[in-house]
Amino acid sequence: MKDKTKVKRVPKRGHYDSETIHNILDKDFLCHVGFVHEGYPVVIPTLYGRDGDKLYIHGSMASRMMKDLEKGIELSLSVTMVNGLVLARSAFHHSVNYESVVLFGTASLVDNENEKMRALEIITDHVLKNRWKETRIPNQKELKGTMVLSIPLDAASAKIRTGGPIDDKEDMDLGIWAGTIPIHKTYGSPIKDELMDPDITTPESVKAII
Amino acid sequence: MKDKTKVKRVPKRGHYDSETIHNILDKDFLCHVGFVHEGYPVVIPTLYGRDGDKLYIHGSMASRMMKDLEKGIELSLSVTMVNGLVLARSAFHHSVNYESVVLFGTASLVDNENEKMRALEIITDHVLKNRWKETRIPNQKELKGTMVLSIPLDAASAKIRTGGPIDDKEDMDLGIWAGTIPIHKTYGSPIKDELMDPDITTPESVKAII
Repeated sequence: MKDKTKVKRVPKRGHYDSETIHNILDKDFLCHVGFVHEGYPVVIPTLYGRDGDKLYIHGSMASRMMKDLEKGIELSLSVTMVNGLVLARSAFHHSVNYESVVLFGTASLVDNENEKMRALEIITDHVLKNRWKETRIPNQKELKGTMVLSIPLDAASAKIRTGGPIDDKEDMDLGIWAGTIPIHKTYGSPIKDELMDPDITTPESVKAII
Repeated sequence: MKDKTKVKRVPKRGHYDSETIHNILDKDFLCHVGFVHEGYPVVIPTLYGRDGDKLYIHGSMASRMMKDLEKGIELSLSVTMVNGLVLARSAFHHSVNYESVVLFGTASLVDNENEKMRALEIITDHVLKNRWKETRIPNQKELKGTMVLSIPLDAASAKIRTGGPIDDKEDMDLGIWAGTIPIHKTYGSPIKDELMDPDITTPESVKAII
């Protein structure tokens, strides 16, 4: 484990095993990527997918972020889910329950056509499981216009907070409500494309989440 | 508007007016902050609150991020909400609907005690409206152990995608389901702290979201 990967604040919340890290990464599909452009830091949100111990991100060949990262410059990437509000008796001990991953590394261009297609499948299915096989897959022009980068997970750490509020002893009898409010991500009813034949039935990928 | 603030990819999705930027920032409470530490970029999730044209973030005096940012080094900060899956006929035109803000700047230490207390109120109430007045507010020791930083919003941009999929003409009759799946953040039933007197009733701040 590289030193920079070590969780600095509240070290007991830090986790370094692949299973924990993969599990968090597989629950979400949005990450924030940080890199240095002309001397200043930039943080950009983007989608990702995971294959084993690497992440894939993709973007237009014209994307500044992709062009920068393709050069192999250092990056940091974070995925964070907030799972609940933690309401303590004291303002000071208020918190949120969360699961996050922070990683460091450099990206590599995926230029092998088979791996590139496979990476796009992984990203698509990461956002919505089993969607890829229902779609018209990328043609040569689309593949050429898309850049795919691979980022290793070998310098990653997870940080997790669960459970209720931890108040100071002297605050326990203040008569203030304390507890946790869970937060969930939920999917609403599908909105069909107006231009679609209304007889086309809801696909399996969508049925699985609604 | 500084050049680095300009939305580079899909410029029509870029917005630069304060109303749009504030509106997005007020819907969420988690941001990702990027900065350069010993030459490499670091992205860390943290809570925030907004007061007019500035954001507040807070952390322990021992936090590496807070100590770094207090020095006035360049930072980037992003807030992103994913509001829906956009399922096109082609894999290529799959997307998500989102609202995001990316900003650049430097942070300033909030050392005036009144402003510091007010900033902590703003952050607390940003996470859960009207919670602050229900709590035991910070004492001198807690205030001294907490660092608050202020970040101006004068180099910020918003990026928004709404609406359905945009497929190529030649894909319209493929018989593939296309549409949008809304994503919502929902709050579950409150879980009372086990150590709390069960007769204490649910406070107004919690009633307002459940």
